[in-house]
Formats: sequence, structure tokens, C-alpha cells
Amino acid sequence: MKRMIIASTSTVHGGTYLSYILPELEKFFAEVKTILFVPYARPGGISHDDYTGIASKGFAAIGKEVVGLHTFESPEKAVKSAEAIFVGGGNTFLLVTQLYKNKVMEAIREAVYNGVPYLGSSAGSNITGLTMQTTNDMPIIYPPSFKTLGLVPFNINPHYIDADKQSKHMGETRETRIKEFHKINTLPVIGLREGSWLEVIGEEITLKGTLSARIFEQGREGYEVETETSIKF
Amino acid sequence: MKRMIIASTSTVHGGTYLSYILPELEKFFAEVKTILFVPYARPGGISHDDYTGIASKGFAAIGKEVVGLHTFESPEKAVKSAEAIFVGGGNTFLLVTQLYKNKVMEAIREAVYNGVPYLGSSAGSNITGLTMQTTNDMPIIYPPSFKTLGLVPFNINPHYIDADKQSKHMGETRETRIKEFHKINTLPVIGLREGSWLEVIGEEITLKGTLSARIFEQGREGYEVETETSIKF
Repeated sequence: MKRMIIASTSTVHGGTYLSYILPELEKFFAEVKTILFVPYARPGGISHDDYTGIASKGFAAIGKEVVGLHTFESPEKAVKSAEAIFVGGGNTFLLVTQLYKNKVMEAIREAVYNGVPYLGSSAGSNITGLTMQTTNDMPIIYPPSFKTLGLVPFNINPHYIDADKQSKHMGETRETRIKEFHKINTLPVIGLREGSWLEVIGEEITLKGTLSARIFEQGREGYEVETETSIKF
Repeated sequence: MKRMIIASTSTVHGGTYLSYILPELEKFFAEVKTILFVPYARPGGISHDDYTGIASKGFAAIGKEVVGLHTFESPEKAVKSAEAIFVGGGNTFLLVTQLYKNKVMEAIREAVYNGVPYLGSSAGSNITGLTMQTTNDMPIIYPPSFKTLGLVPFNINPHYIDADKQSKHMGETRETRIKEFHKINTLPVIGLREGSWLEVIGEEITLKGTLSARIFEQGREGYEVETETSIKF
């Protein structure tokens, strides 16, 4: 049975790494001793080692050990024997490229279907959707495909942000970008605000955290769903 | 001899379509009667016809006729016989996909090298660089390549925007995104603020408009260049 936490962000304003969600993670990973960390997205371009260090420090607060996927000779085998998986944020194009290059996209999908608990934040949440096509990231590398894990039947837009009505900037708002996506794609999109997450238990998907989320479906206006709502299409 | 205007945006806050740059365009297109408009980027997902209508209305103010590339049976032939080319903004992924699909990427490059005046705004400016990898857009479609026209020896970041120091949003700033690009790419990047443009005459490239631009090179901090500066690496 699938068990996942799909978080908009690793860090909320004024907090430290994962601090806002640690009580939830303590319950979620109650049976887990060691978490396999996927550092491929390299936020700000930091090294795999440095990024794994940040994740380790975050999880030390709840007594979990973290090991970096990059330290294994066979990433595929490491995924197959993982107790739990955490895919961190950063650049989604880089993350997806590395997941394909290291042949772990399919292995992660299988592990999660087999019940290995999965935590994603930001880019690591984006890839739980059917495609990475609602990422906010810059295409710094050309991935072999935009298809991702498909562990939920929709796409994720992490770090969802409402339009700033005072802004004089003429670049597209987040909502405009997602509407452009829906001109040529049919998948629903969940805009997850920072501090929100989706909890997935089997086929049951629930919005958690204190904020509402914004849902976009092709051919209709975006609409809000409140926290603790079950997400169904 | 190449002649290009590479504009950050089609419209500045409080203005109408192209209004801020019309005096410049009147000089630039002085010898031109009809402009071939490439509507492929479809801002907000509008139709090719509607988008061509907006461009036509903008150029009517300086007495230019605009025809949409989508109205020709052979887009390649249309480009080859164009007096002038304008590639409008919208979604860069969609634009690049359509340019390849309609086999006009190479034809546009050749036309510009042969002296056909080229105007780009936003996505239409992004593609004048070596790759589209510093676009701000959402990857709503998978293009066959990220390589673009390569008419200037660097990449463009249109709608460049400085970090909002008051923001509590944890998503990456534009500068952070470009720094991530430089962790794995060597091309210089010009962040063009809205209201700025590059004028290209042969190999001479000059920043125009009232604002400074921000330049990013691999391995050094971003720095400002003032308007009327010649851009060289």
C-alpha cells in the first residue's frame, strides 16, 4: 500500500529545514531507522554530499539516519533495499535527468507501490505527479522525458503562489502558466502552497497543513480546497 | 549583416502592446512594409489568429502590415521570402516545439544572417540565444531540443526581476535559478529587465532602453551594465 507525504517545500519562512513538518514525519517514519535520500536536484547547485548533510541534520532531530543515494555503487539496488525514501527539492530538470540516467525512476515507483514510505519536497514532490510539466524550475538540463513517477493521478505545482496584485511585473503569474499548460494538456494540477502537503495512504489522498490548496482542471476556473479535504477527480 | 531588436517584453506596466518601443521600431523597420509574425508561443493559450490580431493592431500605429506565419501552407517558404520577422512572446517550450515541427528554426537563422530584420519579445527574444535554458516558462510541452537560434553568443533571461527582499516565499529567486544554470552550463546569460532591449547590428550588440541589465557569467557574481553599453564577452 502506498504511503507518501508530498510537501510543497522543505522549509517555510522563518523555519529551519523540515521544522514545520517534523511532528508529522516522526509519525510517518515511526517504523523507520534509515532514510535513503535522493540529493540529485542539488538546490543552488550544492554538492550531493553537502545536500545529504542538510537532510541528515534535519532528520537528526527525530533520530533518523540519512544516507545519500549517490554513495551507492548501484543506485538501483540501493532503492530496492531502502526502508524509506526522501527526494529533496532543487531543480526538477536536473533531478529527472539524474533519475533516468541512474535508472532509478522505475525502481522508486515500484518501491512506493510495495509500501516503502516516500517523502518528497518541492522538486521531489513534483515528480510524484504524472509529468514534471508543472514545475517552476529553469530547464538547465535536457531530460530524456518529462514523464515522472505517476504515483498520484494528477500533476503537482509546488511553492504555489497567488498573483501579487500590486506587482508591475509583466511576466506570467503562476495561474496563467498553469492555464497555458491546460490549453494543451488534460491532467489536473494541484497548486500546493508552502506549508501544505498531501498525505497519500493507498488510494486515499488528503490535503494537510493549515492552508488551502488551489486546484486547476482543464476547462474550468481554478478553485480552492480546504485542508483535510480528500482529493479526488 | 544581422539586424535585430531583442526585447525583454512586448508590453511594460501601464502601456499598450509595443507602445514603449514603437519609436525605435519605426526606425528599425523604416524600409519594411510587411512583417511576418510568428504567433507560435500563444501567450495565455490564445489562438494564432487572435495573437496575430494583437500584433497587427500594435504595428498599425506605425503603418506596418502584419501577416501570421500560421496562414502559409509552407512556413519555411514564408520565412525565406519574408521582408522582416517578429517572434512574439508566450510559452518558450511551445514556441521552440513549433519552430522545429514546422522546420523554420534553420530558415529563421539563415534569414537573419542574410540581413532580414528580426524583432523578438520575451520568448521570441529567449530563442535568439544559444539555448532556451534560461527561460522562465513552464515546460507545458516537450521540445525536440533546447537549442535555439544562436544569433547572439549568450543566453537571454527575459523579464529579468530582482529578488523581492520582503518576500516570505521560499521558491528560488531569478538570480538563484541562473546560478543553478551556471553550475552545469558555461554560457553567459543576460538578464533583460522589462523596458530594456538589445540592439544587434552585425556583431555589435548594445543595451538600449532606460534600465541597466544584469549579466551572469559562470564562476563570478552577477553584475550590472548600464544602458548604451556594448555587450562583449
